[in-house]
Amino acid sequence: MGMKLHGHMSSPFVKSVAMTIYEKNEDFELLFGGLSELKSEEFIATKNPFGLMPAFEDGDLILFESRAIAKYVDAKFEGQGTCLMGSNIRDQALVNVWIEVEGHTFFSAIWPICREFYSKKVPDVTVIETHIVKVKKVFDIYEAQLSKHKYLAGEFFSFADLFHIPTLHFLQCLSEDVFRRILDGQSRLQSWHQDITSRPSWKKIIARPEASDWSYIEKV
Amino acid sequence: MGMKLHGHMSSPFVKSVAMTIYEKNEDFELLFGGLSELKSEEFIATKNPFGLMPAFEDGDLILFESRAIAKYVDAKFEGQGTCLMGSNIRDQALVNVWIEVEGHTFFSAIWPICREFYSKKVPDVTVIETHIVKVKKVFDIYEAQLSKHKYLAGEFFSFADLFHIPTLHFLQCLSEDVFRRILDGQSRLQSWHQDITSRPSWKKIIARPEASDWSYIEKV
Ligand SMILES: N[C@@H](CCC(=O)N[C@@H](CS)C(=O)NCC(=O)O)C(=O)O
Ligand SMILES: N[C@@H](CCC(=O)N[C@@H](CS)C(=O)NCC(=O)O)C(=O)O
Repeated sequence: MGMKLHGHMSSPFVKSVAMTIYEKNEDFELLFGGLSELKSEEFIATKNPFGLMPAFEDGDLILFESRAIAKYVDAKFEGQGTCLMGSNIRDQALVNVWIEVEGHTFFSAIWPICREFYSKKVPDVTVIETHIVKVKKVFDIYEAQLSKHKYLAGEFFSFADLFHIPTLHFLQCLSEDVFRRILDGQSRLQSWHQDITSRPSWKKIIARPEASDWSYIEKV
Repeated sequence: MGMKLHGHMSSPFVKSVAMTIYEKNEDFELLFGGLSELKSEEFIATKNPFGLMPAFEDGDLILFESRAIAKYVDAKFEGQGTCLMGSNIRDQALVNVWIEVEGHTFFSAIWPICREFYSKKVPDVTVIETHIVKVKKVFDIYEAQLSKHKYLAGEFFSFADLFHIPTLHFLQCLSEDVFRRILDGQSRLQSWHQDITSRPSWKKIIARPEASDWSYIEKV
């Protein structure tokens, strides 16, 4: 019995989990019954009490929260495909540091920009400009880190890098212009982004037409 | 050479790391040179590029981000004191699920309330009321989870519970009234909170006078 991923491939969080599964050379069954299914009593009672995608099933283990699911998949297939959490406790600690930076500092700087574009008829320019400044401040730190190491957590590709990919892709699809501006002048960051988005696991995801079909991203 | 924790004990994030260290029956050296030290070139270059507390040293390993530091301490002292990450990959996955809920959903609902109280002369009532509703929605889900399990991730105390303690304590110190309102009517949540704050590790922290000396929390 294989792994089941509940959600639509347009969601950046569903993409993170899917990319993780591909990095482990595994596959999954994708199940999606529309946004209304996420809010159904059944989904909330048995899959994710928050009514969000992704949810995940592996036998009788049911999980939600993309980063937690991704870490489980990496641990379950330890020694297979790419090791995404670091291979000793020091490396794991550094991976966790940059996962925290991604999940809190990077995400809360970039997500409000995405939200303006996907949820509003007329995006609020002030919100966008304020948050571009915030993202660029975070990226100055990334640029410095990437001048010392090939990847954020060290010399190896890990979740610290991977979790950034879907959100950056989402922004790029929403506004190529803003996307260019946040990477502007950061040459190491640009090479890093080029490198991590060239991975076969990511190419396999964006080759799917639903990967950039935003009709399932709720307009809130 | 012991572990060094850079920061002031009033910070909820410094408290999380300190409580983790106590749960492992270990100790640390606390170092703090004032808020200006956090923004010094030296601190930013060698401790935390974001200029925030806590930062952490264990020999030549330097870390920042409280949740990442706490996980490192738990992994380093595996088999000693409380196991805070779960003892098998299923439990670890469930701990990670609820750590994500804490770090994203809970934190972004509760923190704006704290910010109104600590950073403004006249807190904005609308912001506070809106976020009380958000916290209560999250807590309805916690209440349901705690009717199925003793702790958030299962029958064992873990980081999923621990990381909530300092933020709830911070809010309680800022406004006993709001604190009561968010726990109101949630009997399992109240027992859970009672239980987790009775741990000797937490009592040791709040016994320190600096633990509730908010003069080092920046007024932003
Ligand atoms: N922190 C969660 C976020 C999940 C989330 O926000 N999912 C969005 C899709 S990008 C969703 O389900 N939206 C549908 C809705 O809000 O109804 C994770 O990482 O899994
Ligand atoms: N996500 C970080 C947050 C760190 C943080 O925001 N620390 C605050 C103290 S509560 C700080 O250093 N404030 C001082 C400042 O902003 O200058 C963590 O978990 O360690």
